[in-house]
Amino acid sequence: MDKYVLGIDIGGTNLRGALLEGNENIVDRLKIPSEADQGIDRLIDNLTSFVEKIRGDRAIGGIGIGVPGIIDSTKGVITAAPNITGVDDYPIRDILAEKLGGGIGLVIENDANMVALGEWRKGAGRGVNSMIMMTIGTGLGGGIILDGKLWSGAHGMGGEIGHMTVYPGGPGCNCGNYGCLESYASAVAIRRMVSQALEDGDLVTSLRDKVRDAHPDEIPERVMEAALGGDELALGIWGEVGKALGIAIASLQNLLDVEMVVLGGGVSNAWDLFIDTAKKEACKRGFRAPMEKLRIEKSVLGDDAGIIGAGYLALHK
Amino acid sequence: MDKYVLGIDIGGTNLRGALLEGNENIVDRLKIPSEADQGIDRLIDNLTSFVEKIRGDRAIGGIGIGVPGIIDSTKGVITAAPNITGVDDYPIRDILAEKLGGGIGLVIENDANMVALGEWRKGAGRGVNSMIMMTIGTGLGGGIILDGKLWSGAHGMGGEIGHMTVYPGGPGCNCGNYGCLESYASAVAIRRMVSQALEDGDLVTSLRDKVRDAHPDEIPERVMEAALGGDELALGIWGEVGKALGIAIASLQNLLDVEMVVLGGGVSNAWDLFIDTAKKEACKRGFRAPMEKLRIEKSVLGDDAGIIGAGYLALHK
Repeated sequence: MDKYVLGIDIGGTNLRGALLEGNENIVDRLKIPSEADQGIDRLIDNLTSFVEKIRGDRAIGGIGIGVPGIIDSTKGVITAAPNITGVDDYPIRDILAEKLGGGIGLVIENDANMVALGEWRKGAGRGVNSMIMMTIGTGLGGGIILDGKLWSGAHGMGGEIGHMTVYPGGPGCNCGNYGCLESYASAVAIRRMVSQALEDGDLVTSLRDKVRDAHPDEIPERVMEAALGGDELALGIWGEVGKALGIAIASLQNLLDVEMVVLGGGVSNAWDLFIDTAKKEACKRGFRAPMEKLRIEKSVLGDDAGIIGAGYLALHK
Repeated sequence: MDKYVLGIDIGGTNLRGALLEGNENIVDRLKIPSEADQGIDRLIDNLTSFVEKIRGDRAIGGIGIGVPGIIDSTKGVITAAPNITGVDDYPIRDILAEKLGGGIGLVIENDANMVALGEWRKGAGRGVNSMIMMTIGTGLGGGIILDGKLWSGAHGMGGEIGHMTVYPGGPGCNCGNYGCLESYASAVAIRRMVSQALEDGDLVTSLRDKVRDAHPDEIPERVMEAALGGDELALGIWGEVGKALGIAIASLQNLLDVEMVVLGGGVSNAWDLFIDTAKKEACKRGFRAPMEKLRIEKSVLGDDAGIIGAGYLALHK
């Protein structure tokens, strides 16, 4: 077997990736613009030059790529990806394989599944045999490890934990459903909750000033600051996040009885503001015995998780 | 390997079981009272004599037993079983093994998991690699087959599909949660919905007469008859059943992306009265691609499913 594999994460803004040794240790890194908004052809060109640049003259045994979207990983097809312009049932694996030549093995997976694999192999989940990962960022991505393997579904489209229904009559989600977990636990959800609350012009809250000139991406952090300062509205929003997570975790644990749930992503930085509510709600709702055995942990690898997971999958699939 | 295995289903009323050949075909059957309400010691005596009776002088290679309750199948322990008097963290596998002697391999599993295995091996799910089973009877039992194996959890306590939360503010469930799927799709749920509806004494419905003298166990069938006769209230109840099933199926498919969902159990006999609503709700809420690939089927094995599944597990675990 060749000594190196490549793990790549396709983001809306950047391609980030690393060259990994067989033990999934990072030996080299690279980040270049993805230009995903300029269409799939540009993205493919950028991916090709990314691979050329990082490998140099080293032999690569395989490439794993995390893609933000609905992936048919068994066929290597992007079914849908809202952040990549012009993609619909796109056979990215075959097209890239042809561009790169040389018979390099390519695996593609949903990016959140790659994060799950990374956290399981090298992060919070080291040593467990079953784990659920939730990446709470703009949306809420999920990944499920069962019996020491990623379970991404019969057609590679599972693990969409953000799109479990928690409140059937809740707000509409981009996916077409109502009351998805993602609609309560994500940056998008927090922005919605802030906007709704501030519609009441008489409400006294420090949030009104804090969010006035904030970029939408900064709003979860502003809500975190406000909550840490004791703002009731902000505290209530984190309570809603925690409650929705707790409802979902109880359902997941009753269903899957895993050893660990790992929460990561930018929004999870507000850990102390939602985790007690989440655990309390989950314990209230879930079966006693499997809930007592469940560990709920914070991710430790940050942005590296997806890259390490992609490298792992390239090595082991 | 010995030619025969034994599959047994422990019910609140009866012990039912069969002797199976290595290909999971039934060659002999037996049914005796379980007397589970008279305590675990009596049940163990009955299980022992059940095994002696059915095996005669044939060599048995293994015994699989489906138990109605929360099972730690890895340890062979009944964690809790509301229908067996005096059971709490009871090591049934070791106790039975000692009683039966002769080093016969024993596996225990939740009864709904055994049904899932049976339907997958010999019933509606033959040939698929991933399947979710829901047994809609007094409660709603579940079983999950992934990658050609039962996934019953890290501690054997998973598959509790009936205790996914579908309506977080819904009615209290025996399990301690609120708004479980079982509280909308089960005989217990239907009895609750009937009682609540009939509290309005002015409501005109044929159900009032139909259920007046009915035994609680007969109520789902009466509601089925009334619905088939066009009774609006009864039709509405089946609509609620279907809607809750649809919400759960969409969440399950977004999570697990399986090839097939199989619905069985006595309440599923009302198939035509709830399945269209269930499918419509699931398609409305679930991701398009995995929902289009999902087959939703009625179970075919009836009461044999659990016995066949128990025999299969005895053979293959």
